[in-house]
Amino acid sequence: MAQQKKMVDAITSMDEDFAKWYTDVCKKAELIEYTSVKGCMVIRPYGYAIWENIQRILDGMFKETGHENVCMPMFIPESLLQKEKDHVEGFAPECAWVTYGGSEKLEERLCVRPTSETLFCEHFKNVVHSHRDLPKLYNQWVSVVRWEKTTRPFLRSREFLWQEGHTLHATAEEAIEETERMLNVYTEFCQKYLAIPVVQGQKTESDKFAGAERTYCIEALMHDGKALQAGTSHYFGDGFARAFDIQFSNKDNQLTYPHQTSWGMTTRLIGAIIMTHGDDNGLVLPPAVAPIQAMVIPIAQHKEGVTEKSEELCERLKKVCRAKIDLSDNSPGWKFAEYEMKGVPVRVEIGPKDIEKNQCVVVTRHNREKTFVSLDDIESVVLEKLEEVRDGIYQKALENRENRTYIARSTDEIAKALEENGDGFIKAMWCGDEECEDKVKEITGVGSRCIPFEQESLDDKCVCCGKPAKTMLYWGKAY
Amino acid sequence: MAQQKKMVDAITSMDEDFAKWYTDVCKKAELIEYTSVKGCMVIRPYGYAIWENIQRILDGMFKETGHENVCMPMFIPESLLQKEKDHVEGFAPECAWVTYGGSEKLEERLCVRPTSETLFCEHFKNVVHSHRDLPKLYNQWVSVVRWEKTTRPFLRSREFLWQEGHTLHATAEEAIEETERMLNVYTEFCQKYLAIPVVQGQKTESDKFAGAERTYCIEALMHDGKALQAGTSHYFGDGFARAFDIQFSNKDNQLTYPHQTSWGMTTRLIGAIIMTHGDDNGLVLPPAVAPIQAMVIPIAQHKEGVTEKSEELCERLKKVCRAKIDLSDNSPGWKFAEYEMKGVPVRVEIGPKDIEKNQCVVVTRHNREKTFVSLDDIESVVLEKLEEVRDGIYQKALENRENRTYIARSTDEIAKALEENGDGFIKAMWCGDEECEDKVKEITGVGSRCIPFEQESLDDKCVCCGKPAKTMLYWGKAY
Repeated sequence: MAQQKKMVDAITSMDEDFAKWYTDVCKKAELIEYTSVKGCMVIRPYGYAIWENIQRILDGMFKETGHENVCMPMFIPESLLQKEKDHVEGFAPECAWVTYGGSEKLEERLCVRPTSETLFCEHFKNVVHSHRDLPKLYNQWVSVVRWEKTTRPFLRSREFLWQEGHTLHATAEEAIEETERMLNVYTEFCQKYLAIPVVQGQKTESDKFAGAERTYCIEALMHDGKALQAGTSHYFGDGFARAFDIQFSNKDNQLTYPHQTSWGMTTRLIGAIIMTHGDDNGLVLPPAVAPIQAMVIPIAQHKEGVTEKSEELCERLKKVCRAKIDLSDNSPGWKFAEYEMKGVPVRVEIGPKDIEKNQCVVVTRHNREKTFVSLDDIESVVLEKLEEVRDGIYQKALENRENRTYIARSTDEIAKALEENGDGFIKAMWCGDEECEDKVKEITGVGSRCIPFEQESLDDKCVCCGKPAKTMLYWGKAY
Repeated sequence: MAQQKKMVDAITSMDEDFAKWYTDVCKKAELIEYTSVKGCMVIRPYGYAIWENIQRILDGMFKETGHENVCMPMFIPESLLQKEKDHVEGFAPECAWVTYGGSEKLEERLCVRPTSETLFCEHFKNVVHSHRDLPKLYNQWVSVVRWEKTTRPFLRSREFLWQEGHTLHATAEEAIEETERMLNVYTEFCQKYLAIPVVQGQKTESDKFAGAERTYCIEALMHDGKALQAGTSHYFGDGFARAFDIQFSNKDNQLTYPHQTSWGMTTRLIGAIIMTHGDDNGLVLPPAVAPIQAMVIPIAQHKEGVTEKSEELCERLKKVCRAKIDLSDNSPGWKFAEYEMKGVPVRVEIGPKDIEKNQCVVVTRHNREKTFVSLDDIESVVLEKLEEVRDGIYQKALENRENRTYIARSTDEIAKALEENGDGFIKAMWCGDEECEDKVKEITGVGSRCIPFEQESLDDKCVCCGKPAKTMLYWGKAY
């Protein structure tokens, strides 16, 4: 009953209210549930299975590039957090503080990690002494806490799941190479596996990670034209090493400060998937991370032989992909809607008439295209269709981004582009001055997203002050 | 240099000081490092890789038995924790409390989860309405915090990693069946994969989990004769459901309270591995969870062809197991000691003379047995040797337990057995009275470990008061 009822309430349309559509999808696709812990959520089995797939693929990519997993404590003593000045300034305002252990007040309060640079530094100091101990290529899969005022499922919550890579190198060159390598890993992951096109670039000075010398990022454009930072990779120079007094004896036996990086991706990737690929029927999942890749739905399952044949079909598909069958007594129409809502990339229908003809019907989620397929070829066709879905949704997302990327040569042109076309990326030149960055945001509402690696020379003047331009920036409203 | 030096300092001998031997192994095998966060540790790559293998195998077993992973918040509002009376009494004294978010004092303080029954209950209330929504078979892999006074790596730390299963069922029978099923999964995991023999049983009333009707457990005996609880599985009846007002409409459309279970295993399993299988040369790892199963060590690697042949051998082994090669310029003797310390189950040596004879030398860690093996058969022999190690260390652990299990019919006999033989399991009859349980502990130092499923009738009188005995208990000193 409860389930039947659920599908009757359609979700809000994207065009009507994108924010409402988003939370409707999170709930109706059973990704999350709210809790009485303000700003924190339950990630339900279907949502967590997406995260497990993300983890498995990314973890494999990290290990292939030589990284090892570790686990640091979740608490950071206040004095440890304070060792690097910029870092503590950036994070202290949003720390959750533990002040009591049982009934005893702690001598020093502990912050629940918002990020773990300081803990890694303390550990590096203990285990790195010689150039033979370098590089250290570490990662951990944990949750972190940042005391946000306003929260939204996956996009901004007080606790979120992530991976944080932390590496230490003998030279600046090696550390910078690592920072770039991991940005490329993130890019490949987003584009190939999540089918989300991204812009690679560098954050401006004002937008850097607290304590970093450089922050690289990948920026994606959501269906509604808002930007989303999908991953960041930071180069710290030897700033943390100096603050924490980490030194190693180099090949010439001289004490030297090592160079450091960190890089992270979070459960907000699930938010990016929803807002990049979803539609008015719900989720559309990239096949690589879809918990169910092919859903077998019997038609007229009470008729003789249908259940058996459907089960046989599902067993065959299970050998090549993540396949499942729904034999419940809900109607086929209800099931279609349910698995469209859940974004299952491929649906396989099979009924008495199909069985007679030794065929079944394959429907791809993103475009609802129907294909009649001989049962003899079903495994290879389903695998092809999964590829088609990945390519199709990537192409669609890329077109959305291209249609929503505007060039502007003045703040007026920015305002005009936004007014005429709605939100999107603005490409515009910049003099490099923080004042102009702030002013553009104040006047037009869009902030700098990144200095893209792929530069274009659109103009020789800054979009704001008209003085000589240094670089092209991507601007946008951000999640 | 630093590495060379490390191996010079031998570890303390087990017989001399078992506790010191244990922490030496934790440090020298590079499993953990201490931190400035009191009672918390860093799990280093080699230690974490063991945990990843434990996770992978257990997670597979959970999924095969129909469980799904989820993720609950790490915080529990104080009012939520207080809903079940026994539960809060058991856990509140060791909660870490968050009282500030940024610079603002929280209206209600939040406890960092010591366990998540209360959060699961809140969620169950939201998502369970009909008998069609049952059973819910959930698990999560997270870390939890308990504010312990004295801590030891893996065995007792303020934060530890674990999995917690939480399930909800329509009937008491189903829930009890689940509690038993998961205890059997734990038993199989310990015995088959960790090679640790365990006793299955039930905790006495005084030793139950806070809020449970019954707690089942598996108990292992460490090399030094102390007991270690390796896993627990709890049946809650409908106590939590009543406290949280979780009801569902059953098949007759009547509102009913569901029945609940929870079960958990933690990183203390790594402590159990160390103390069950380790020896004076360091760790001995069960092959199923060893990060490196076979270590290839070239002998006289400067001689022509040795490096190439060793690498070729390692590549072949990588296809059948987790193999690695050490081509560093440390001496073979140093490498032997290093990988013995790290408990690598199988070592494969290959030098110029071996190459001439188309052979290599295979050495098993637990008994240091050497076998000359033709290179033609190396894959199958290494796989056989890994089986041999598993069986060998299981047998050794079982013998240790049998040699250290004593029967006693009075507290005098308990004291005598311990004095003559050292620590171990005591099997003795019990009247079922908590007073006798306490008194035995007071007089002899051993506490009740469990009421084993496999009962024996040793006597008809209680070991303590002499009144009629109800059951046989296992007694012991515990980690």
